[in-house]
Amino acid sequence: MKAPPEDGRRRVVIESLSPQLDGGRFAVKRTVGDKLVVEADAFADGHDEIRVVVRWWEPGAARKAWHEAEMALLGNDRWRAEIALEHLGRYRYTVVGWVDGLRSWWRDLAKRTAAGTDTDIDQAIGAQLLEAAAGRADSAGKRDDRDRLSDRDRLDESLLELAERYPDREHESVYDHVLEVIVDRRRARFSAWYELFPRSTSPDPSRHGTFGDVVDRLDYVARLGFDVLYLPPIHPIGRQFRKGPNNVVGAGVDDPGVPWAIGGAEGGHSAIHPQLGRPADFRRLVREAGKRGIEIALDIAFQASPDHPWVTEHPSWFLARPDGTIQYAENPPKKYQDIYPFDFESDDWPGLWRALNEVIRHWIGEGVRIFRVDNPHTKPFGFWDWLIGDVQADYPDVLFLAEAFTRPKVMYRLAKLGFSQSYTYFTWRNTKRELTDYFTELTQTQLREFFRPNAWPNTPDILHEVLQTGGRAAFEARLVLAATLSANYGIYGPAFELLEHTPREPDSEEYLDSEKYQQRTWDLERRDSLGELIALVNRARHEHPALQTNERLWFHAVDNEQLIAYTKNTADRSDIILAIVNLDYHRPQAGALELGLDGLGLPADAPYELVDLLDGTSRLWQGPRNRVELDPARRAAHLYHVRRLRSEREFEEYA
Amino acid sequence: MKAPPEDGRRRVVIESLSPQLDGGRFAVKRTVGDKLVVEADAFADGHDEIRVVVRWWEPGAARKAWHEAEMALLGNDRWRAEIALEHLGRYRYTVVGWVDGLRSWWRDLAKRTAAGTDTDIDQAIGAQLLEAAAGRADSAGKRDDRDRLSDRDRLDESLLELAERYPDREHESVYDHVLEVIVDRRRARFSAWYELFPRSTSPDPSRHGTFGDVVDRLDYVARLGFDVLYLPPIHPIGRQFRKGPNNVVGAGVDDPGVPWAIGGAEGGHSAIHPQLGRPADFRRLVREAGKRGIEIALDIAFQASPDHPWVTEHPSWFLARPDGTIQYAENPPKKYQDIYPFDFESDDWPGLWRALNEVIRHWIGEGVRIFRVDNPHTKPFGFWDWLIGDVQADYPDVLFLAEAFTRPKVMYRLAKLGFSQSYTYFTWRNTKRELTDYFTELTQTQLREFFRPNAWPNTPDILHEVLQTGGRAAFEARLVLAATLSANYGIYGPAFELLEHTPREPDSEEYLDSEKYQQRTWDLERRDSLGELIALVNRARHEHPALQTNERLWFHAVDNEQLIAYTKNTADRSDIILAIVNLDYHRPQAGALELGLDGLGLPADAPYELVDLLDGTSRLWQGPRNRVELDPARRAAHLYHVRRLRSEREFEEYA
Repeated sequence: MKAPPEDGRRRVVIESLSPQLDGGRFAVKRTVGDKLVVEADAFADGHDEIRVVVRWWEPGAARKAWHEAEMALLGNDRWRAEIALEHLGRYRYTVVGWVDGLRSWWRDLAKRTAAGTDTDIDQAIGAQLLEAAAGRADSAGKRDDRDRLSDRDRLDESLLELAERYPDREHESVYDHVLEVIVDRRRARFSAWYELFPRSTSPDPSRHGTFGDVVDRLDYVARLGFDVLYLPPIHPIGRQFRKGPNNVVGAGVDDPGVPWAIGGAEGGHSAIHPQLGRPADFRRLVREAGKRGIEIALDIAFQASPDHPWVTEHPSWFLARPDGTIQYAENPPKKYQDIYPFDFESDDWPGLWRALNEVIRHWIGEGVRIFRVDNPHTKPFGFWDWLIGDVQADYPDVLFLAEAFTRPKVMYRLAKLGFSQSYTYFTWRNTKRELTDYFTELTQTQLREFFRPNAWPNTPDILHEVLQTGGRAAFEARLVLAATLSANYGIYGPAFELLEHTPREPDSEEYLDSEKYQQRTWDLERRDSLGELIALVNRARHEHPALQTNERLWFHAVDNEQLIAYTKNTADRSDIILAIVNLDYHRPQAGALELGLDGLGLPADAPYELVDLLDGTSRLWQGPRNRVELDPARRAAHLYHVRRLRSEREFEEYA
Repeated sequence: MKAPPEDGRRRVVIESLSPQLDGGRFAVKRTVGDKLVVEADAFADGHDEIRVVVRWWEPGAARKAWHEAEMALLGNDRWRAEIALEHLGRYRYTVVGWVDGLRSWWRDLAKRTAAGTDTDIDQAIGAQLLEAAAGRADSAGKRDDRDRLSDRDRLDESLLELAERYPDREHESVYDHVLEVIVDRRRARFSAWYELFPRSTSPDPSRHGTFGDVVDRLDYVARLGFDVLYLPPIHPIGRQFRKGPNNVVGAGVDDPGVPWAIGGAEGGHSAIHPQLGRPADFRRLVREAGKRGIEIALDIAFQASPDHPWVTEHPSWFLARPDGTIQYAENPPKKYQDIYPFDFESDDWPGLWRALNEVIRHWIGEGVRIFRVDNPHTKPFGFWDWLIGDVQADYPDVLFLAEAFTRPKVMYRLAKLGFSQSYTYFTWRNTKRELTDYFTELTQTQLREFFRPNAWPNTPDILHEVLQTGGRAAFEARLVLAATLSANYGIYGPAFELLEHTPREPDSEEYLDSEKYQQRTWDLERRDSLGELIALVNRARHEHPALQTNERLWFHAVDNEQLIAYTKNTADRSDIILAIVNLDYHRPQAGALELGLDGLGLPADAPYELVDLLDGTSRLWQGPRNRVELDPARRAAHLYHVRRLRSEREFEEYA
């Protein structure tokens, strides 16, 4: 017979603690100002009452510096409490429970009294329990409470409550994991990204754009309503095997090359491309952007051109082939001789990891707090786990966006490891069924705890067929979908607002004359620019908290497969947004929309108002079923603010 | 910057390993002969091929004495393998994966060759990889394999397969938990229980029944088809506060008392009631039962009468009240002065735990291998965790049935802690909706991994209203439901087969003149006994493997709420049982049954045969929709063996 466990008197069981990922291996994510709703199953053997508390540690708190809050019983042995998340960083939390002898005794005493049975002995037992509580009050230095608890004459609920401040927790049970929640700043949850190539911002086509030109572009970006300006790599570009326009092998002397072929004689990942400016110019850009409420996001592409200084300084960080040359990037039979991947299996992998960490820290030092990480899925998962955790331990305001367009489990793993936001399949989800299924998966399953989607209708790598063939209506529709299905979204501009839609060749998703390979000049003042619509959409996002989260996304039925309709609303339903988008970019479509009024807190028997945030018109609806119609020649989407009318008068004014 | 982890080159990620309970805290359950299907998500960064194996340890195996088997990719980064469970006890298992450089190289070489690109360097890289494999073969003492791997002239798939027997696993990843599966004997999954009071087995009403009388009853129990004979406590019964017939306070001199008031001058939990016999008589009963394929299950009720020897020998195991008396059992305002609960919070709790463990071991020594545990939910969960684990470590063939009729999470926790079988809410689930919902929960959710239901239509404590008022049809229906919905079931007899249905008072679930309080004599030869039907049902269970598991329970639609229909089938669908039960015990009911032919492997366009195992009649059906009808005055249920006709001839013979 083996020995009994250490303390067989820990009678409370705690299980199914939520939120929780993979048995506590990963942290869930929230943003500052959120309340973390913690729930657990807790119960004891027999019929005794129990008490359950959630215990938590603020970021960086010492092991014993915890807070506790009482949990409330929801029924079916499920308990709940909320933790207010007020600081950036990693909170830890767990649950503790114990048998409440005093409360059990009090409950049974009431039953006995009601039944008229003799309670002399029960009174004596209660006195013992209260005396013990008085002793604990005394040990805690609370003399007044001790004295009150020792006064047996007035035994009532208030005395019991006092006694419960000094519970007997000798045999309390602590849940067997301590869980974590990463608390990010609000922009992790709600952000609008604008990507541009700095070299294409020069008003003079013959001159390479500079950080100064980007500063001049800031007002435009702010007018459009974006709050993150994301720049592709700003570093020196390699010369060996440099690609020419449209990805041709062998660049001309004046071809600027691909920004992702990082590193040249002028430096590597911490250097700035000389034609863009100097470090001071970059810092000025960060400052000027900040004045306009815009943050600069940098591209982190952990790879090197053959001219990167590390190729000679740290040859061990690259894979040597049997002939002594360095292994370039490949996707057989395709070869990318202008790119050397780092060898993460090198014997000096710790040195490589540290150097890459230093790159991030360098740019943090230059004022950057958002990094868009290129192809994170081609570097070891353990590397990101360590890098993000280490950087955020020092800088909890730093955010990472994962540019992983790969298999779902790989993308989700990266998010679990700490990426603050993630690119999605949105770009390739176009039908009503595809969009509904995908955003239901993203917002209704466990993914909501750790995967924050960032939806892009286009990127420099992806000009989807619907944009190639769908005309203006497709751009409008995809913009509204991205910006309202997902609280984080972005566009690659000015290609997007200027309706750039010609592929490099048929069946390609590459842009013709892509900025990846050449400098472009854009006419931002073109009359057909989508700028005005973009500004309206971003304004709606800023004015309507319903659009600032992916919680409570709800698809409503329309009896036409080309029309998709969904709402988002705040928890208190004071703000409700209804989006209706025509996915047929060539023909008008109409149908009956069945709105779930009850779930939205809208009346079934009174009119409610819809104000279209894209054109300012308004209308009244009554009842769940209403006809909707969209003609792509005029507009691709409605974006309604829905509200119940507050009075008869308001209704009459309407009429 | 904190240091990188120990080995940043473990590139394979392993997650979502199944089966798994609560992050590995609890074992799942299987029975000998089962295959454990293990699945996991596994993937690496980048595009390299990986290999994944399941690693397992047989019961009691040393830490390094593991087995491994290759897992196969199912798609979407999900891998699967099966482990054959051949031994009793606890198997452990986990998953290991590594990047397969050789296979990755081979794949890329094929692509390059197909594209006609130069492969000189690739050949050289491959030679290095093969040479390394040859080195590992050499280290393993496999000279022949080493030589074959060093022969670069014949590079083909078979050489690659040879090389893969010597993989480079230096940086393999091991899943971060080792999981467990309890492998029980088959009776844990498939058993038919018969409960009787030994004292009521005497043919002479004036004489107390003996173990000898029980031996005489064994042929009857075997004829009915049961394989577990469960006896309420067989120990001396206390005298103080002994209850009389129908639970009256104050027993007469000759009243035998309640068997659960355990302990008297003659001894406690290891003693035998003198009127039942001596230890040798008990051992004979166990032996005689065994000859008939019947196991004796003992009742374990961890509580004492005031006359139990421990009350004086170990007063610290009981709770003393302020007046010096011992706390008896209570459910305020009800008092059970004939029962003393043990005080599991006593300072000598380890002594109490050990003594209770010794009780189990005593009866194991007497030949008992099945224990039905009374009210386990009123003893600490940690106690059962320790007790069951400790006993099964020495006796992996011992089974425990939890008699916990309490809140669902408490019942499920007990099952997770190790109880082999569990009583259920079946007794109170009577409508089609209730039965469908409950058995769907039990068989389709995670519960299937650890909670083995044991369904009882009646117990000495529960005479449900449907049996009080439903007449013979209710008994028939509840029998068929229990025996076919659940692979483990039981009845309390002879009360059940003799249709005992009078409650002690209106609205009570207690039996009038319950055997709990008095000796009864039963006329087993009564013409209205259900014995014949019970024997047919148990025979069907033994002859049809579909009924020997709760896997693949499937409810089919009937357009009549009083008719419930469901199938069970073997994995290969060679055995299919269809049960149809009329839940209206007073009126005939008919309806159209919609059978899911496709899922059962039955033809939609040819007839199939149904043989009723309860009356031997047969019929042909064709297509999914067929009319069913049951008249409770004649019979309450069909129990069909369903099979496809094997040939035209068989069909013609039928016609």
